[in-house]
Amino acid sequence: MFEAEIDAGILKECVEAITAVVDEGRLKIGSNGLNLRAVDPSNVSMVSFQLQSDAFDDYRFSSEGGGENEDKNENANALVIGMDFQKLLGILGIGGREQVWLSIDEQAQKLNMRMGSLAYTINLLEPSSLRNQPKVPELEFPVQVVMSTEEFRRTIRAAEKIGEHILLGVEGDEFYMEVVGEMDKLRLGLRKEQLIHLTPGTLHSLFTLDYISAMSKGMSHAETVTLNLGKDYPLQIEFEVAEGKGKVTYLLAPRVE
Amino acid sequence: MFEAEIDAGILKECVEAITAVVDEGRLKIGSNGLNLRAVDPSNVSMVSFQLQSDAFDDYRFSSEGGGENEDKNENANALVIGMDFQKLLGILGIGGREQVWLSIDEQAQKLNMRMGSLAYTINLLEPSSLRNQPKVPELEFPVQVVMSTEEFRRTIRAAEKIGEHILLGVEGDEFYMEVVGEMDKLRLGLRKEQLIHLTPGTLHSLFTLDYISAMSKGMSHAETVTLNLGKDYPLQIEFEVAEGKGKVTYLLAPRVE
Amino acid sequence: MFEAEIDAGILKECVEAITAVVDEGRLKIGSNGLNLRAVDPSNVSMVSFQLQSDAFDDYRFSSEGGGENEDKNENANALVIGMDFQKLLGILGIGGREQVWLSIDEQAQKLNMRMGSLAYTINLLEPSSLRNQPKVPELEFPVQVVMSTEEFRRTIRAAEKIGEHILLGVEGDEFYMEVVGEMDKLRLGLRKEQLIHLTPGTLHSLFTLDYISAMSKGMSHAETVTLNLGKDYPLQIEFEVAEGKGKVTYLLAPRVE
Repeated sequence: MFEAEIDAGILKECVEAITAVVDEGRLKIGSNGLNLRAVDPSNVSMVSFQLQSDAFDDYRFSSEGGGENEDKNENANALVIGMDFQKLLGILGIGGREQVWLSIDEQAQKLNMRMGSLAYTINLLEPSSLRNQPKVPELEFPVQVVMSTEEFRRTIRAAEKIGEHILLGVEGDEFYMEVVGEMDKLRLGLRKEQLIHLTPGTLHSLFTLDYISAMSKGMSHAETVTLNLGKDYPLQIEFEVAEGKGKVTYLLAPRVE
Repeated sequence: MFEAEIDAGILKECVEAITAVVDEGRLKIGSNGLNLRAVDPSNVSMVSFQLQSDAFDDYRFSSEGGGENEDKNENANALVIGMDFQKLLGILGIGGREQVWLSIDEQAQKLNMRMGSLAYTINLLEPSSLRNQPKVPELEFPVQVVMSTEEFRRTIRAAEKIGEHILLGVEGDEFYMEVVGEMDKLRLGLRKEQLIHLTPGTLHSLFTLDYISAMSKGMSHAETVTLNLGKDYPLQIEFEVAEGKGKVTYLLAPRVE
Repeated sequence: MFEAEIDAGILKECVEAITAVVDEGRLKIGSNGLNLRAVDPSNVSMVSFQLQSDAFDDYRFSSEGGGENEDKNENANALVIGMDFQKLLGILGIGGREQVWLSIDEQAQKLNMRMGSLAYTINLLEPSSLRNQPKVPELEFPVQVVMSTEEFRRTIRAAEKIGEHILLGVEGDEFYMEVVGEMDKLRLGLRKEQLIHLTPGTLHSLFTLDYISAMSKGMSHAETVTLNLGKDYPLQIEFEVAEGKGKVTYLLAPRVE
């Protein structure tokens, strides 16, 4: 049994963070909140999403499954549903309503949503038709950069006009983002004092800009963003949602230069 | 002879109400004001429009025709012109001018418009090339719902994302609008106390959403809208324009379920 | 050597004035400022552009060329670069930065731009690949009209909905712009007292609206615009940019009626 009530804006922010990487996925609903881990169809990027139950104004969950997995872990009795997040985003985009009331009809495999006098019923997706939840690889990042989300997003927007790949790197006390187009070059250089945090170093990795562009749209409500970097290594992007009661982590494979 | 002056915003509101159903039509100009009745090309929806002469800041009309129809009715001596309302709307959309001055050149079959220093001359359409004015069928509606136009329009916008047909109905003390899409369902339920007026009952009719979508755009300036309903029966929508000095009635045939 | 700093909004205003006529051109950089003269690919319209060095917050130029042309004129030692103004406009459109710092790398034939922490490097175009700077024909205009740019632009926008050609003329104490479409006619008439200046007369010329539409977008920051007219004669449009420290002149060939 799952019934919950949440601010429509907060739910939208969460769904936008997910749809930056995948259109649909397996959402786990447990007693402590929601979580999801999903890989995009090209296997290049991944999103991990957690939302605490206290991000909701009302949150009621009770496991219907019984016994056998009980001791394994806290998610053993979680309810796993297949969700079309793009459709959910479309409905939330209709807007004009303050609170969303959610409930799952497990028998009928439907999500019921109510916003004011409007009631929606959406078919859930068959979880087995969706890709398995990916394992998170074990990664160690020598460099961490914390910066204003707005600065990051503005640079990505600028980069889109120049080329298709972007270099993220650190050179001593400077973090840089560099795009080399066919004829032109764009470089953003931010020195340690212009950032919230920087691990000095000398390394960089190259990424496909399209993925980072999509991700940058998913983080529009976060004030700061944390970038974890290595040398020719994946990029990990972390930020908060739901006023700190939720967390999103993106992982993006590097391109070989 | 027809010459008139009117607020550009009010004229635009009227023309938008008409173009929600038809692009062109026969407009009757009489001593008491304007009126029009027209059916859309598919014969599914109809618009009736009346605008009193006192909606104008200046209104001068005199019949040039003579005698023989004089006694029949008040519109006997009306001037009937063929008007391309979409074109008129385009010109009004240019905006930035407060007052519109209109005059008809019957000889040349032209409409002259002046807005500030801008003067337009538009060819009138040959009335005989336009469809005959339809008869309004005699209808009796057992149920009447009066609601906020904004609530109605918001629900229609939401419905457009879900499906192609919409059920409007009353169930006891509740008015509802329901769209059943291929996989999803949307329902707006408004209880008597959330409406301005409701005749309780148990009935519904099904309509093609596209027509109601168009109509909902035509009523954007009205505060409230009146829906007259029956069981598997046409829908009649009424609202005011021109600060109460004009009236629009839409009629829409039901779909057979 | 050329290095300069300028307000991003002012630079954008200048580039927009140029791209109303040409996408790329030869820009002359001299000790007194910048200037450009270019003809559109169809040879129908021309733009002349001048920007004084004091429109810049910082302006450093020194000629690298030597001697032989020194006495000819003040531009003898100017640096001539080939610039893709559309690309420059795209970069300035990214916006959000107050000041732009510019420098030319003559060796590498590159323009370096810095806006805050963002640095761009754009390849210059080979000047010899661009069309030669046109000669300005000697013209005398019997009539001059000075009017509000907003009024001019609004009329042009209205005209675009009606037809493809526009007549600009003077009839006694009235300046008029007239578009005759297939079925409709638009006329703006402004009497002397509604204009800032008018030379009375009786003459008109016909122009292709597309060119004037493009030009009207290039002048959006100027308060007033000066139109110089003759009988079946070119149209000259003049306006200021950069708070009076720059000047743009458009010239447009008439159509034969």
